[in-house]
Amino acid sequence: MVDILHKIGIKSSSPHAVYKALTTLEGLSGWWTSDTKGDCKTGGVIRFRFGNGGFDMKVLAQDPARHVLWEVIDGPEEWLGTKIGWDIRQDGEWTTVLFKHAGWKEPVAFMHHCSTKWAVFLVSLKALLETGQGTPWPDELKLDSWEENRAAA
Amino acid sequence: MVDILHKIGIKSSSPHAVYKALTTLEGLSGWWTSDTKGDCKTGGVIRFRFGNGGFDMKVLAQDPARHVLWEVIDGPEEWLGTKIGWDIRQDGEWTTVLFKHAGWKEPVAFMHHCSTKWAVFLVSLKALLETGQGTPWPDELKLDSWEENRAAA
Repeated sequence: MVDILHKIGIKSSSPHAVYKALTTLEGLSGWWTSDTKGDCKTGGVIRFRFGNGGFDMKVLAQDPARHVLWEVIDGPEEWLGTKIGWDIRQDGEWTTVLFKHAGWKEPVAFMHHCSTKWAVFLVSLKALLETGQGTPWPDELKLDSWEENRAAA
Repeated sequence: MVDILHKIGIKSSSPHAVYKALTTLEGLSGWWTSDTKGDCKTGGVIRFRFGNGGFDMKVLAQDPARHVLWEVIDGPEEWLGTKIGWDIRQDGEWTTVLFKHAGWKEPVAFMHHCSTKWAVFLVSLKALLETGQGTPWPDELKLDSWEENRAAA
Protein backbone atom coordinates (compact mmCIF):
# COMPACT_ATOMS: atom_id res chain seq x y z
CA MET A 1 0.00 0.00 0.00
CA VAL A 2 1.24 3.47 -0.88
CA ASP A 3 -0.13 6.87 0.08
CA ILE A 4 -0.35 10.37 -1.34
CA LEU A 5 0.62 12.94 1.30
CA HIS A 6 0.27 16.72 1.26
CA LYS A 7 0.37 19.64 3.66
CA ILE A 8 -0.80 23.16 3.05
CA GLY A 9 -1.06 26.27 5.19
CA ILE A 10 -3.87 28.78 4.89
CA LYS A 11 -3.22 32.29 6.15
CA SER A 12 -5.69 34.32 8.22
CA SER A 13 -8.29 31.57 8.17
CA SER A 14 -9.49 29.29 10.98
CA PRO A 15 -9.96 25.57 11.62
CA HIS A 16 -13.73 26.13 11.53
CA ALA A 17 -13.59 27.81 8.10
CA VAL A 18 -11.40 25.01 6.69
CA TYR A 19 -13.69 22.37 8.19
CA LYS A 20 -16.69 24.05 6.57
CA ALA A 21 -14.92 24.00 3.18
CA LEU A 22 -14.48 20.22 3.58
CA THR A 23 -17.91 19.32 4.96
CA THR A 24 -20.50 21.37 3.04
CA LEU A 25 -21.62 21.22 -0.60
CA GLU A 26 -21.02 24.96 -0.90
CA GLY A 27 -17.49 24.65 0.46
CA LEU A 28 -16.50 21.59 -1.60
CA SER A 29 -17.99 23.17 -4.76
CA GLY A 30 -15.77 26.18 -4.21
CA TRP A 31 -12.42 24.43 -4.53
CA TRP A 32 -12.71 20.84 -5.86
CA THR A 33 -15.50 20.52 -8.38
CA SER A 34 -18.41 22.82 -9.09
CA ASP A 35 -20.48 19.63 -9.61
CA THR A 36 -20.66 18.37 -6.01
CA LYS A 37 -23.89 16.81 -4.71
CA GLY A 38 -25.05 14.47 -1.98
CA ASP A 39 -25.15 14.19 1.77
CA CYS A 40 -22.21 15.62 3.72
CA LYS A 41 -23.24 14.19 7.11
CA THR A 42 -21.32 11.33 8.70
CA GLY A 43 -22.50 8.15 6.96
CA GLY A 44 -23.67 10.10 3.93
CA VAL A 45 -22.35 9.87 0.38
CA ILE A 46 -20.95 12.87 -1.50
CA ARG A 47 -20.85 12.69 -5.31
CA PHE A 48 -18.03 14.60 -6.97
CA ARG A 49 -18.29 14.88 -10.77
CA PHE A 50 -15.84 16.21 -13.34
CA GLY A 51 -17.83 15.99 -16.55
CA ASN A 52 -17.52 12.40 -17.70
CA GLY A 53 -16.64 10.62 -14.43
CA GLY A 54 -15.91 11.29 -10.81
CA PHE A 55 -15.90 9.85 -7.31
CA ASP A 56 -18.47 8.88 -4.68
CA MET A 57 -17.18 9.28 -1.15
CA LYS A 58 -18.76 7.88 1.98
CA VAL A 59 -18.18 10.17 4.96
CA LEU A 60 -16.66 7.83 7.56
CA ALA A 61 -15.83 10.35 10.27
CA GLN A 62 -16.06 14.04 11.08
CA ASP A 63 -14.66 15.80 14.12
CA PRO A 64 -15.56 19.50 13.87
CA ALA A 65 -12.61 21.77 13.07
CA ARG A 66 -10.18 18.85 13.45
CA HIS A 67 -10.67 15.83 11.21
CA VAL A 68 -12.57 14.49 8.19
CA LEU A 69 -12.32 10.98 6.71
CA TRP A 70 -13.86 9.70 3.47
CA GLU A 71 -13.86 6.29 1.80
CA VAL A 72 -14.09 6.00 -1.98
CA ILE A 73 -17.08 3.76 -2.78
CA ASP A 74 -17.35 4.50 -6.51
CA GLY A 75 -14.93 5.85 -9.11
CA PRO A 76 -11.83 4.64 -10.96
CA GLU A 77 -10.76 1.14 -9.99
CA GLU A 78 -7.48 2.41 -8.49
CA TRP A 79 -9.46 4.63 -6.09
CA LEU A 80 -11.98 2.05 -4.85
CA GLY A 81 -11.55 1.37 -1.16
CA THR A 82 -8.90 4.05 -0.70
CA LYS A 83 -9.40 6.53 2.13
CA ILE A 84 -8.92 10.27 2.13
CA GLY A 85 -8.14 11.91 5.45
CA TRP A 86 -7.91 15.55 6.43
CA ASP A 87 -6.35 16.76 9.67
CA ILE A 88 -6.70 20.42 10.60
CA ARG A 89 -4.68 22.36 13.15
CA GLN A 90 -3.82 25.94 13.93
CA ASP A 91 -0.15 27.05 13.79
CA GLY A 92 -0.06 30.68 14.89
CA GLU A 93 -1.68 32.79 12.19
CA TRP A 94 -1.87 29.87 9.74
CA THR A 95 -4.34 26.98 9.60
CA THR A 96 -2.56 23.80 8.50
CA VAL A 97 -4.15 20.91 6.63
CA LEU A 98 -2.45 17.51 6.63
CA PHE A 99 -3.86 15.45 3.77
CA LYS A 100 -3.55 11.70 3.16
CA HIS A 101 -4.99 9.65 0.30
CA ALA A 102 -4.19 6.23 1.65
CA GLY A 103 -4.32 2.67 0.44
CA TRP A 104 -3.25 2.72 -3.20
CA LYS A 105 -2.33 -0.82 -4.25
CA GLU A 106 0.52 0.17 -6.58
CA PRO A 107 2.47 3.38 -7.40
CA VAL A 108 1.11 3.49 -10.95
CA ALA A 109 1.44 6.52 -13.26
CA PHE A 110 -2.18 7.43 -12.45
CA MET A 111 -1.22 7.71 -8.77
CA HIS A 112 1.61 10.11 -9.73
CA HIS A 113 -0.97 12.16 -11.64
CA CYS A 114 -3.47 12.18 -8.78
CA SER A 115 -0.77 13.30 -6.33
CA THR A 116 0.02 16.39 -8.40
CA LYS A 117 -3.67 17.01 -9.07
CA TRP A 118 -4.50 16.89 -5.34
CA ALA A 119 -1.84 19.58 -4.82
CA VAL A 120 -3.46 21.72 -7.52
CA PHE A 121 -6.82 21.43 -5.75
CA LEU A 122 -5.28 22.05 -2.30
CA VAL A 123 -3.87 25.29 -3.69
CA SER A 124 -7.44 26.02 -4.85
CA LEU A 125 -8.72 25.32 -1.30
CA LYS A 126 -6.08 27.73 0.04
CA ALA A 127 -7.13 30.40 -2.48
CA LEU A 128 -10.83 29.94 -1.67
CA LEU A 129 -10.19 30.51 2.03
CA GLU A 130 -7.64 33.31 1.64
CA THR A 131 -9.34 35.25 -1.16
CA GLY A 132 -12.93 33.96 -1.39
CA GLN A 133 -12.23 32.49 -4.85
CA GLY A 134 -10.96 28.99 -5.58
CA THR A 135 -10.47 27.31 -8.96
CA PRO A 136 -12.69 24.21 -8.82
CA TRP A 137 -13.22 22.00 -11.87
CA PRO A 138 -13.67 22.88 -14.72
CA ASP A 139 -11.49 25.96 -14.13
CA GLU A 140 -8.45 24.32 -12.51
CA LEU A 141 -5.04 23.82 -14.13
CA LYS A 142 -5.06 20.91 -16.59
CA LEU A 143 -2.18 18.46 -16.33
CA ASP A 144 -2.58 16.38 -19.49
CA SER A 145 -4.45 16.11 -22.79
CA TRP A 146 -7.08 13.79 -21.30
CA GLU A 147 -8.03 16.41 -18.70
CA GLU A 148 -7.99 19.17 -21.30
CA ASN A 149 -10.26 17.23 -23.62
CA ARG A 150 -12.65 16.24 -20.81
CA ALA A 151 -13.06 19.88 -19.74
CA ALA A 152 -13.74 20.92 -23.33
CA ALA A 153 -16.31 18.14 -23.94
CA MET B 1 10.86 3.85 2.83
CA VAL B 2 8.21 6.11 1.35
CA ASP B 3 8.25 8.15 -1.84
CA ILE B 4 6.82 11.38 -3.18
CA LEU B 5 5.35 10.84 -6.65
CA HIS B 6 4.14 13.38 -9.20
CA LYS B 7 3.28 13.57 -12.89
CA ILE B 8 2.83 16.66 -14.98
CA GLY B 9 2.16 17.28 -18.65
CA ILE B 10 3.64 20.18 -20.57
CA LYS B 11 1.86 21.28 -23.72
CA SER B 12 3.60 22.15 -26.98
CA SER B 13 7.04 21.51 -25.52
CA SER B 14 9.50 18.68 -26.25
CA PRO B 15 11.52 16.10 -24.30
CA HIS B 16 14.67 18.02 -25.23
CA ALA B 17 13.30 21.31 -23.85
CA VAL B 18 12.22 19.62 -20.59
CA TYR B 19 15.59 17.88 -20.28
CA LYS B 20 17.35 21.24 -20.74
CA ALA B 21 15.23 22.76 -17.94
CA LEU B 22 16.41 19.93 -15.64
CA THR B 23 20.09 19.83 -16.60
CA THR B 24 21.30 23.43 -17.01
CA LEU B 25 21.76 26.21 -14.45
CA GLU B 26 19.67 28.52 -16.63
CA GLY B 27 16.83 26.01 -16.82
CA LEU B 28 16.84 25.07 -13.13
CA SER B 29 17.03 28.76 -12.12
CA GLY B 30 13.91 29.40 -14.16
CA TRP B 31 11.53 27.16 -12.23
CA TRP B 32 13.03 25.92 -8.91
CA THR B 33 15.26 28.53 -7.33
CA SER B 34 16.84 31.61 -8.82
CA ASP B 35 19.90 30.77 -6.65
CA THR B 36 21.15 27.65 -8.46
CA LYS B 37 24.89 27.10 -8.89
CA GLY B 38 27.33 24.27 -9.48
CA ASP B 39 28.14 21.65 -12.05
CA CYS B 40 25.25 20.05 -13.94
CA LYS B 41 27.29 17.32 -15.62
CA THR B 42 26.98 13.68 -14.55
CA GLY B 43 29.03 13.31 -11.36
CA GLY B 44 28.82 17.04 -10.64
CA VAL B 45 27.13 18.72 -7.69
CA ILE B 46 24.36 21.31 -8.12
CA ARG B 47 23.72 23.70 -5.21
CA PHE B 48 20.14 24.88 -4.81
CA ARG B 49 19.64 27.69 -2.28
CA PHE B 50 16.47 29.27 -0.89
CA GLY B 51 17.84 32.07 1.25
CA ASN B 52 18.79 30.45 4.54
CA GLY B 53 19.26 26.82 3.51
CA GLY B 54 18.92 24.52 0.56
CA PHE B 55 20.06 21.28 -1.03
CA ASP B 56 23.19 19.93 -2.72
CA MET B 57 22.46 17.32 -5.35
CA LYS B 58 24.96 14.98 -6.95
CA VAL B 59 24.01 14.18 -10.54
CA LEU B 60 24.00 10.38 -10.62
CA ALA B 61 22.68 9.82 -14.13
CA GLN B 62 21.54 11.69 -17.21
CA ASP B 63 20.09 10.20 -20.39
CA PRO B 64 19.36 13.06 -22.81
CA ALA B 65 15.66 13.83 -23.27
CA ARG B 66 14.71 10.75 -21.20
CA HIS B 67 15.99 10.56 -17.63
CA VAL B 68 17.75 12.49 -14.86
CA LEU B 69 18.69 11.19 -11.40
CA TRP B 70 20.04 13.16 -8.45
CA GLU B 71 21.15 12.14 -4.95
CA VAL B 72 20.83 14.57 -2.05
CA ILE B 73 24.29 14.89 -0.47
CA ASP B 74 23.64 17.96 1.71
CA GLY B 75 20.50 19.58 3.12
CA PRO B 76 17.86 18.81 5.76
CA GLU B 77 18.47 15.53 7.56
CA GLU B 78 15.26 14.01 6.17
CA TRP B 79 16.53 14.60 2.61
CA LEU B 80 20.06 13.16 3.03
CA GLY B 81 20.56 10.11 0.86
CA THR B 82 17.17 10.41 -0.82
CA LYS B 83 17.09 10.28 -4.62
CA ILE B 84 15.16 12.43 -7.04
CA GLY B 85 14.35 10.93 -10.41
CA TRP B 86 12.84 12.46 -13.52
CA ASP B 87 11.47 10.44 -16.43
CA ILE B 88 10.48 12.25 -19.60
CA ARG B 89 8.29 10.95 -22.42
CA GLN B 90 6.21 12.33 -25.24
CA ASP B 91 2.44 11.65 -25.26
CA GLY B 92 1.08 13.16 -28.47
CA GLU B 93 1.25 16.93 -28.18
CA TRP B 94 2.21 16.82 -24.48
CA THR B 95 5.55 16.08 -22.86
CA THR B 96 5.05 14.12 -19.65
CA VAL B 97 7.34 14.18 -16.62
CA LEU B 98 7.16 11.38 -14.07
CA PHE B 99 8.78 12.56 -10.85
CA LYS B 100 9.90 10.49 -7.86
CA HIS B 101 11.56 11.69 -4.64
CA ALA B 102 12.43 8.31 -3.22
CA GLY B 103 13.77 6.95 0.03
CA TRP B 104 12.16 8.98 2.82
CA LYS B 105 12.60 7.11 6.08
CA GLU B 106 9.24 8.13 7.58
CA PRO B 107 6.07 9.91 6.35
CA VAL B 108 6.67 12.90 8.64
CA ALA B 109 4.78 16.21 8.34
CA PHE B 110 7.82 17.68 6.56
CA MET B 111 7.43 15.01 3.87
CA HIS B 112 3.77 16.03 3.41
CA HIS B 113 4.95 19.64 3.02
CA CYS B 114 7.68 18.74 0.50
CA SER B 115 5.19 16.71 -1.56
CA THR B 116 2.91 19.72 -2.01
CA LYS B 117 5.87 22.03 -2.55
CA TRP B 118 7.28 19.80 -5.30
CA ALA B 119 3.90 20.08 -7.05
CA VAL B 120 4.06 23.88 -6.77
CA PHE B 121 7.49 23.85 -8.42
CA LEU B 122 6.43 21.33 -11.07
CA VAL B 123 3.63 23.72 -12.01
CA SER B 124 6.36 26.39 -12.22
CA LEU B 125 8.38 24.08 -14.56
CA LYS B 126 5.25 23.65 -16.70
CA ALA B 127 4.73 27.42 -16.83
CA LEU B 128 8.37 28.07 -17.73
CA LEU B 129 8.18 25.71 -20.69
CA GLU B 130 4.70 26.71 -21.85
CA THR B 131 4.99 30.47 -21.39
CA GLY B 132 8.70 31.25 -20.94
CA GLN B 133 8.11 32.38 -17.35
CA GLY B 134 8.24 30.15 -14.26
CA THR B 135 7.91 31.16 -10.61
CA PRO B 136 11.18 30.01 -9.00
CA TRP B 137 12.03 30.86 -5.39
CA PRO B 138 11.62 33.50 -3.99
CA ASP B 139 8.51 34.17 -6.11
CA GLU B 140 6.70 30.85 -5.71
CA LEU B 141 3.55 30.25 -3.64
CA LYS B 142 4.34 30.07 0.10
CA LEU B 143 2.77 27.20 2.02
CA ASP B 144 3.44 28.17 5.63
CA SER B 145 4.68 30.96 7.89
CA TRP B 146 8.23 29.56 7.92
CA GLU B 147 8.47 29.87 4.13
CA GLU B 148 6.90 33.30 4.18
CA ASN B 149 9.33 34.55 6.80
CA ARG B 150 12.34 33.01 5.03
CA ALA B 151 11.44 34.73 1.75
CA ALA B 152 11.05 38.08 3.55
CA ALA B 153 14.36 37.79 5.43
